Amino acid sequence: MAYKDLRDFINDLDQKGLLYRVKRTINKDTELMPLVRWQFRGLPSDERKAFLFESLTDSRGRSFDAKVAVGILGASRPIYAAGMGCKVEEIQERWVQAQRFPIPPKMVDGGPVKEVILQGDALLEAGGIDKFPIPISTPGYDTAPYLSSPYVVTKDPETSIVNVGTYRGMIKGRTRTGIMTHGAQHIGIHLEKARRLGQNLPAAIILGCVPYVGMCSVAKIPYGVNEYDVAGGLAGAPIELVKCETVDLEVPATSEIVVEGELSTEYLEDEAPFGEYSGYMGERAKNHVFNISCITHRRKPIYQAFISQFPPSESSMIRKISYDALMLKFLKYDCNIPTVQRVAFHEMSGSWMYIVIQLDKTNPSQPWQALNAAVALDPTIGKIIITVDPDIDPDDPESVNWALSFCMQPHLDVRITTGKSSMLDPSAAPSGTETEDRRFPKPVGTSAMLIDATRKHAYPTVSLPAKEYMDHAKEIWEELGLPPLKTRYPYHGYALGYWPEEWDKEAQMAVQGLYLETGEKLAQRRKPFRGWKEAKE
Amino acid sequence: MAYKDLRDFINDLDQKGLLYRVKRTINKDTELMPLVRWQFRGLPSDERKAFLFESLTDSRGRSFDAKVAVGILGASRPIYAAGMGCKVEEIQERWVQAQRFPIPPKMVDGGPVKEVILQGDALLEAGGIDKFPIPISTPGYDTAPYLSSPYVVTKDPETSIVNVGTYRGMIKGRTRTGIMTHGAQHIGIHLEKARRLGQNLPAAIILGCVPYVGMCSVAKIPYGVNEYDVAGGLAGAPIELVKCETVDLEVPATSEIVVEGELSTEYLEDEAPFGEYSGYMGERAKNHVFNISCITHRRKPIYQAFISQFPPSESSMIRKISYDALMLKFLKYDCNIPTVQRVAFHEMSGSWMYIVIQLDKTNPSQPWQALNAAVALDPTIGKIIITVDPDIDPDDPESVNWALSFCMQPHLDVRITTGKSSMLDPSAAPSGTETEDRRFPKPVGTSAMLIDATRKHAYPTVSLPAKEYMDHAKEIWEELGLPPLKTRYPYHGYALGYWPEEWDKEAQMAVQGLYLETGEKLAQRRKPFRGWKEAKE
Repeated sequence: MAYKDLRDFINDLDQKGLLYRVKRTINKDTELMPLVRWQFRGLPSDERKAFLFESLTDSRGRSFDAKVAVGILGASRPIYAAGMGCKVEEIQERWVQAQRFPIPPKMVDGGPVKEVILQGDALLEAGGIDKFPIPISTPGYDTAPYLSSPYVVTKDPETSIVNVGTYRGMIKGRTRTGIMTHGAQHIGIHLEKARRLGQNLPAAIILGCVPYVGMCSVAKIPYGVNEYDVAGGLAGAPIELVKCETVDLEVPATSEIVVEGELSTEYLEDEAPFGEYSGYMGERAKNHVFNISCITHRRKPIYQAFISQFPPSESSMIRKISYDALMLKFLKYDCNIPTVQRVAFHEMSGSWMYIVIQLDKTNPSQPWQALNAAVALDPTIGKIIITVDPDIDPDDPESVNWALSFCMQPHLDVRITTGKSSMLDPSAAPSGTETEDRRFPKPVGTSAMLIDATRKHAYPTVSLPAKEYMDHAKEIWEELGLPPLKTRYPYHGYALGYWPEEWDKEAQMAVQGLYLETGEKLAQRRKPFRGWKEAKE
Repeated sequence: MAYKDLRDFINDLDQKGLLYRVKRTINKDTELMPLVRWQFRGLPSDERKAFLFESLTDSRGRSFDAKVAVGILGASRPIYAAGMGCKVEEIQERWVQAQRFPIPPKMVDGGPVKEVILQGDALLEAGGIDKFPIPISTPGYDTAPYLSSPYVVTKDPETSIVNVGTYRGMIKGRTRTGIMTHGAQHIGIHLEKARRLGQNLPAAIILGCVPYVGMCSVAKIPYGVNEYDVAGGLAGAPIELVKCETVDLEVPATSEIVVEGELSTEYLEDEAPFGEYSGYMGERAKNHVFNISCITHRRKPIYQAFISQFPPSESSMIRKISYDALMLKFLKYDCNIPTVQRVAFHEMSGSWMYIVIQLDKTNPSQPWQALNAAVALDPTIGKIIITVDPDIDPDDPESVNWALSFCMQPHLDVRITTGKSSMLDPSAAPSGTETEDRRFPKPVGTSAMLIDATRKHAYPTVSLPAKEYMDHAKEIWEELGLPPLKTRYPYHGYALGYWPEEWDKEAQMAVQGLYLETGEKLAQRRKPFRGWKEAKE
């Protein structure tokens, strides 16, 4: 059964033991995010929980009607799986199928999001967007609270195709926020089309709703696919939408808060610094501005924030999960490479730069088909893209490093491609460079490295004892009372295509103690030695 | 105080709680190595211990006078540190200083290694080398027991400079073993010189002695430096040596077993398959043969074996520790790059292929000076070599992947160099290729990729909350009774050279709640928008 609203989901997290309720009053400007940050700097990934802050204050001593939820979408994989209503190991396939079999949304007449409607003077008197306890993400360095988990709804001004996406936004005034977009993003296309038409771009920002919409908002869903449809696919039921008050857009009926307004195409404003996904502060940049015309919200709303910034974070986790699935679906179903098995975006790359593709190739071109397609999916995504064989765990950096070490030769298996674009990558250009010049630094933009680390020929067997000896030794291990084992895979040798029959026979003789016979046989095959080629040539 | 022999060291490991004594009878062909293997496939690195097997049998039902020790040099860092008589964090500096201030060995008249002397018929009747309980490392795939931890002593036939090195050797007969060498190794140079002089190469194989000699035997100590001198430097006292019986070579007086003989330069023999450091079975190859003339040993000797093969293993650990130190010493003291701080060979590359160099560069050429020098140290070592800044942990694959993701651009910061040589790297050539053709495959050998992942300019601050907020939040964390934290570094933001004063002021205002004032200021700096360059160009 799909969750009907955010509260339903939060209660379920609580019942599953995946939520901390914090009743102590917390300063949203200085204390809230550092507290949640600790679980990313001090607890193993799967032990992290969601936080619900029930009593908030700020540095001006205000109190708030609203609660704040952080980490409820993706502080851990178990939390994300709870949001999808599935097991952790089912997440990727659910995501793939939701894209293949989307379910369109359903319009309804009203909903809780209309419990409070604020416009004009009433909006200003209530404090506008600043009436909510929006946390400062990186106190000490951020120059304001930012919207970190907005689901921004816009329509293509020409085709009316909907896009829902997440773009950070600086709180600049009671009815004004910044918004950071990139021309390569779908909202960037909407903005450019609006500008060419001499229009501003109407937008509605959802702050808190059923998890499915958030999951899609942060995903890289292809242009022209309505995120609400995929969200319905994830939910297994249509998302119920209501019309906005002041813009021709639709938002989930059970949203906690919806902010309506327009993105100006007439001017840009300085925004940031803001702590970014890369692990560095994003620099001051000229960005668009969102002017607010109306806010609707539930009574006693829950303001949802993502904790992002230095990886790993909630944002790297939710991006990873959806990007893994989107890239897998893209390569496997759209790009004609059915042998692709798994995709793993690495969180330490912000789930953005370092991508490993596992495939069970049936011909030697498939890894390059996958690498070339993967690097082309999005101009800003993928700096290091690696293909590996099915016995390599694409999520485990040690397993991938094993493949890099012994399954590729750099002069044969590495290609560098330029023409990529930077999305907040500080290596793109010196600090202080103008926004546009760092996005596509002259003359060739940024670049990506493609590495085929699949094996190019049959390999000899993996050098661990055969399964029967390892299994028997485990019995002895336990009989001796040695410490409990947590098995790492692989734990025994396995064949990789090259294992001549003679070697197998000799190995069987060896474990019977008959190795001197093999030694004797090999002596009969001696050949005269006249120096190694490498010493002579 | 330096250990006087292997037994002294083993007793100390026992007292320190770093040894398992196994009294149950164990089959050295089928049970011994799989049992020790489990701790590498099921326990965290620092929980691994050394094993002393006190009762051995084999698949022929024999019993043995000797015990077997495995993992006593490097099953874990604490064990290696015990062998050096220092703390884990002192290992690298000890190693560097032992190279800079070596202590030559001291000749003595006799020692326990002469308790039993076997030659001629007596040697054969005793069973020769096969009288010892030499384990099969990878049962199911290895074709014989192999010497896995021999310290092979040879002299340059022209200069008499001593080399001590470790080369696997297949047990082929009672007085005959294989030995795998590479022309680029120092023993390979001795062999080639001997061949050109029309001589065989005398050799003595030490099996078990004080840990210092083993540490040096597996290290890449420069040609012309006597490993015994560096071992003395590690011990802080001269290694005491005795003359061999049948060859003009010297060995430690307290060695457990010494095997004397000659490496033939007249013929080669097939050897292997044998489970190799790469994680794959090493293929059958034409290798040299060692013909045994004499064995001397202590009564009730302890046969020492390394557990190698699939990484991580004891062999990847001991190689890593010494290679880290040797490369550091080479780059810092020999190559004129004093700003090199740490070197980390990654175990999943067999401590061979994947190398990370941390330096605090003072000019932009230093990373390339280090990369070019590092790749040149040894023709077989280093396929992926990466330089990083001082705040990156070179041993942590996640930290290195963070640097690769945001501190380099492939088209600017990556170079591939050829002319490398393969030492058992299965990616060098298809399985079944002749030994020589896989060592330097036509036309350019194997290759290495050099990556400068240091930052090329000042970066904005790291995107974690400032220290004061994180420290305060930790107090709240503990007050709330949340789970105990194990701090991951970094846990707070830190400066990287680019942080304009205005941003600092605004960030301070933000935590005081004065962010709307900043928003107002930024509105005054609006600029008209006429489309992004990237959309127009």
